[in-house]
Amino acid sequence: MPTLWTRTLIPTSREAPADAEVPSHQLLMRAGMIHRLGSGIYNYLPLGLRALHKVMQIIREEMNDAGAVETLLSALQPIELWHRSGRRNDYGDVLFVVTDQHGREQALGPTHEEAVTETIGALVNSYRDLPVTLYQIQTKFRDEYRPRFGILRSREFQMKDAYSFDIDHEGLDRSYAAMYEAYCRIFQRCGVPFVVVEAESGEMGGSRSQQFTVPAPTGEDVIFASDHGYSANLEKCATGPRDSDLGGEPTGEWAAIDTPECRSIADLCQGWKRFAGSKLKPANVLKTLIYRRPDGHDDGVAPWAMVVVRGDHEANAEKVRQACGPGLKLAEDAEARTAGFPIGFVGPHAILGREDTDLYIDADAARGGFWVAGGNRDHVHVQHFNWHRDVLAPAGLADDAATLIHDLRNAIDGDPAPDGGTLKASRGIEVGQVFKLGTKYSRALDIEVMDDKNQRVAPIMGCYGIGVNRILAASIESDHGHDDDGIIWPATIAPYSFLITALKYEGNVQAAADTLGRDLEAAGYDVLVDDRDERPGVKFKDADLIGIPVRITVGARALSDGNVEIKARHGGQVQTVALDVAASAAVALLKSIGVATTAGT
Amino acid sequence: MPTLWTRTLIPTSREAPADAEVPSHQLLMRAGMIHRLGSGIYNYLPLGLRALHKVMQIIREEMNDAGAVETLLSALQPIELWHRSGRRNDYGDVLFVVTDQHGREQALGPTHEEAVTETIGALVNSYRDLPVTLYQIQTKFRDEYRPRFGILRSREFQMKDAYSFDIDHEGLDRSYAAMYEAYCRIFQRCGVPFVVVEAESGEMGGSRSQQFTVPAPTGEDVIFASDHGYSANLEKCATGPRDSDLGGEPTGEWAAIDTPECRSIADLCQGWKRFAGSKLKPANVLKTLIYRRPDGHDDGVAPWAMVVVRGDHEANAEKVRQACGPGLKLAEDAEARTAGFPIGFVGPHAILGREDTDLYIDADAARGGFWVAGGNRDHVHVQHFNWHRDVLAPAGLADDAATLIHDLRNAIDGDPAPDGGTLKASRGIEVGQVFKLGTKYSRALDIEVMDDKNQRVAPIMGCYGIGVNRILAASIESDHGHDDDGIIWPATIAPYSFLITALKYEGNVQAAADTLGRDLEAAGYDVLVDDRDERPGVKFKDADLIGIPVRITVGARALSDGNVEIKARHGGQVQTVALDVAASAAVALLKSIGVATTAGT
Repeated sequence: MPTLWTRTLIPTSREAPADAEVPSHQLLMRAGMIHRLGSGIYNYLPLGLRALHKVMQIIREEMNDAGAVETLLSALQPIELWHRSGRRNDYGDVLFVVTDQHGREQALGPTHEEAVTETIGALVNSYRDLPVTLYQIQTKFRDEYRPRFGILRSREFQMKDAYSFDIDHEGLDRSYAAMYEAYCRIFQRCGVPFVVVEAESGEMGGSRSQQFTVPAPTGEDVIFASDHGYSANLEKCATGPRDSDLGGEPTGEWAAIDTPECRSIADLCQGWKRFAGSKLKPANVLKTLIYRRPDGHDDGVAPWAMVVVRGDHEANAEKVRQACGPGLKLAEDAEARTAGFPIGFVGPHAILGREDTDLYIDADAARGGFWVAGGNRDHVHVQHFNWHRDVLAPAGLADDAATLIHDLRNAIDGDPAPDGGTLKASRGIEVGQVFKLGTKYSRALDIEVMDDKNQRVAPIMGCYGIGVNRILAASIESDHGHDDDGIIWPATIAPYSFLITALKYEGNVQAAADTLGRDLEAAGYDVLVDDRDERPGVKFKDADLIGIPVRITVGARALSDGNVEIKARHGGQVQTVALDVAASAAVALLKSIGVATTAGT
Repeated sequence: MPTLWTRTLIPTSREAPADAEVPSHQLLMRAGMIHRLGSGIYNYLPLGLRALHKVMQIIREEMNDAGAVETLLSALQPIELWHRSGRRNDYGDVLFVVTDQHGREQALGPTHEEAVTETIGALVNSYRDLPVTLYQIQTKFRDEYRPRFGILRSREFQMKDAYSFDIDHEGLDRSYAAMYEAYCRIFQRCGVPFVVVEAESGEMGGSRSQQFTVPAPTGEDVIFASDHGYSANLEKCATGPRDSDLGGEPTGEWAAIDTPECRSIADLCQGWKRFAGSKLKPANVLKTLIYRRPDGHDDGVAPWAMVVVRGDHEANAEKVRQACGPGLKLAEDAEARTAGFPIGFVGPHAILGREDTDLYIDADAARGGFWVAGGNRDHVHVQHFNWHRDVLAPAGLADDAATLIHDLRNAIDGDPAPDGGTLKASRGIEVGQVFKLGTKYSRALDIEVMDDKNQRVAPIMGCYGIGVNRILAASIESDHGHDDDGIIWPATIAPYSFLITALKYEGNVQAAADTLGRDLEAAGYDVLVDDRDERPGVKFKDADLIGIPVRITVGARALSDGNVEIKARHGGQVQTVALDVAASAAVALLKSIGVATTAGT
């Protein structure tokens, strides 16, 4: 039976709520697909849930075809698991933790590496039970400090997460490849354009990661693509060789300048005219960051690392870690000051006379020319800073200058790419990510299986995530995902394939609409019939708003000639077709949309 | 593609964990269908999840057919909703409450009356949008103090909950009837035997409720059925007329007996021989309970209610509320003692001289004969208590004796039924319940819609719940749901319809197993192939344990004659059939089981 509009719940509205900043949030609310129950907490209403279920079904089919096995792990997780993996602190306040009647803490799972590792450890003993890839489609929880963008950054959301367990790295490569390919098929079938870029796996503890991103101007993620083929996200993106010259000549006399309260580069540049009588751009400032190495480091390793990047650049946390060593953290103000680094006013010459601090300079900061740097005293900066004169020569580092230079900053648009091309930046929405985890979790949770030589070994893991509801939002945010009138759903994930708009649902119009609906359902499609007692204008406006791919209009006038009208939601013209071929014409129209959308990826 | 045993995760074991008290818990664990991650927290492994999904699919189809509309409300619920409904206190510690980063409390929904009422209130304005019944299938949370019986009483579980909204009570009657009938079809299709009994709606705030219960000797619920047709659960079950005689003659002289520390009837009866030199049965003791009426009661209503039941009977909370008035609570020890009731030693004559206490006597306690009652002093009881001599005559209540007598206790096996028959008690597992809620929630959360006379009215609600995972456990606990060897699944909810046991999965055995599997899948069934390198005995034992309805054994010897063997899990004999008709023979066998199971309900 086709669904009658009046028998379901589609509370459309003309106005979007004031807090809806992006089109997907505005349109999902206006189309009556989601409803906000609290901050970052959304109900899925019938239309929204239907679209969500279609995405889930596509995911399920492709996961099963790829040999993954569906499970459903508990959302509640004993907090001990998170302590044992070391992630209790990493997650911090984002982890929802509930205390039960017995005073024991339970995490509400934002992800399930710990839980699945513990489960496999309890149930699998032998290499003969491997490989296995488990997946689940589940409600996850994250206590976002500032939820936003509707279902793009909410505190409760739907994830597909999968975890592979292999006996060796070759096995992991196969499991990873199977998931990678399944992900490509999933996003293709969902009809969303996507790109795959290299991503950081550092935080998850693994050796490789790739991110699936839907290009969208409103996206929170920045990704880079080289015209020679390399691509990566902001956290990961390397740059090609950049010129540097630590031997450049001084531009003038070293001079200390009073810069009261100028702790940020923005403040400094704004006040510079007043302090020094000239203009100053962030690109002429050296930003000097102090990192603390983890306690218990090896003897001979300095406890502090000084990282210098150009004032208009951002240090990249993972690149810094790569250069300076694992476990590094940006120093707290207080500890750095105690150690003699006046945060806000530190300059590279602070390392002079210190054996406890290593120096790391980003290529763009490792040049000659006019520099302003911190004065190593509160409320003081220096101008005409020169690397050779002021740091390298007095520190005896001039011969080692080349070893101080690293890629330490976030890439920017136009940077040289590592493959020789040029990096182009764009924005997108992350919808999936795949990771080679290695043994981080199997070792942390101390699980082992017997290999074929009767040795106990830690299984090699991969993990693979898809933000299920993000696919809905990303589809809307992407090219051709919406227009001024509303949502434009890809055929495969639309809540219904067909909307039959009965101009007045009575008499022979009702009979024709019902028959058409039943014929389309018999052919395997789902159908919504607008049977409301509303003016045609209201119905057409709502039809465009909810974005069903093909609309069939049944009205008394056309019907008196034996006709109905069909129209594709996206760029379609109204076609008049005879009622007796309307179902097949509508299906043909739908299929033409489906192909076009998929081919666009 | 049929599932290969070695490519999924079925960790069977010979031993059940020590804490598994009932067959469903033991067998679901042993069959590798669930795994315990923490107290009352279970993972669903592939086989268990497949069975769960089959139940969900049946529920979804029947809900849709009944006109209900699927939604997915958030699990997180702002705690204010629970304060507004007044249920924050009612639920108490069983409600999981998590505090977010902003210090705001969120409940983890054990049920969604508040959330759905709030949602409908925000989205529906007019009677023209009603009736609507929303349902969802969702993970729910309850912080059980003592989780037990595996997935029967766990802290995280799967519920189907539905909520109907109507403009008037006739509408509610229709919505309720539609859900009632859908529930009957759901349990029939799931192949579980069930009975429907009247249930209490008091706690939920409504006017009628019925409970769907699967008979099982291990069940936590007690239900009653009269041979004349009436049936109800323990909380609800009324009794027919019981004789009473408050005018009976004294059996002897009133005598106070020292009964040190005998606060319970068990202790009293055990010590009576020592204290009084004779035997005492609980049926000869009057149990006197003191209830406190809610604050702010009307003038003229006594603040205390004294309820007297026979020592071997249990007072029924709802019957007491019905007799004595709403909002009544069993008095705390301290407040009762302050008011002069020495809890543990109170006797009915405590009302003498008090105007602040009303007396309510259960029929079985309202008789003559030998009674022991509390002595109204600590560590003292009295014997030869007589209602007329010791309470009614001195209190001037003798003429009103009949008005003091009520049905106040839980029914017991053999009681007269209200329909004139006799009540028979049995045990069962509650799998569903339907409620007429009325306006409790719509009024508490202050939601209204416009009726057809342009008046704002509170929608009339019903709510309808099914414990999805309980159906799996109840099926196992019920008649024919298991035997000594393992689980016996009904055909409709079994993880797979067919198990092909390949005695040695290689050569022509493998080819025959694969072909059979593909043929059965092409016919629309799901198939598991045991391809393990294990002895036949191990495979047959595991086959019985996991309980797939039809097993097809493919072995080299039978195959050399062109044969395979088929066998029904429940009471089946091994039949030898030719390979080329094996698929159709297996399907015929499966269908015969399906019918038998359903007919048994």
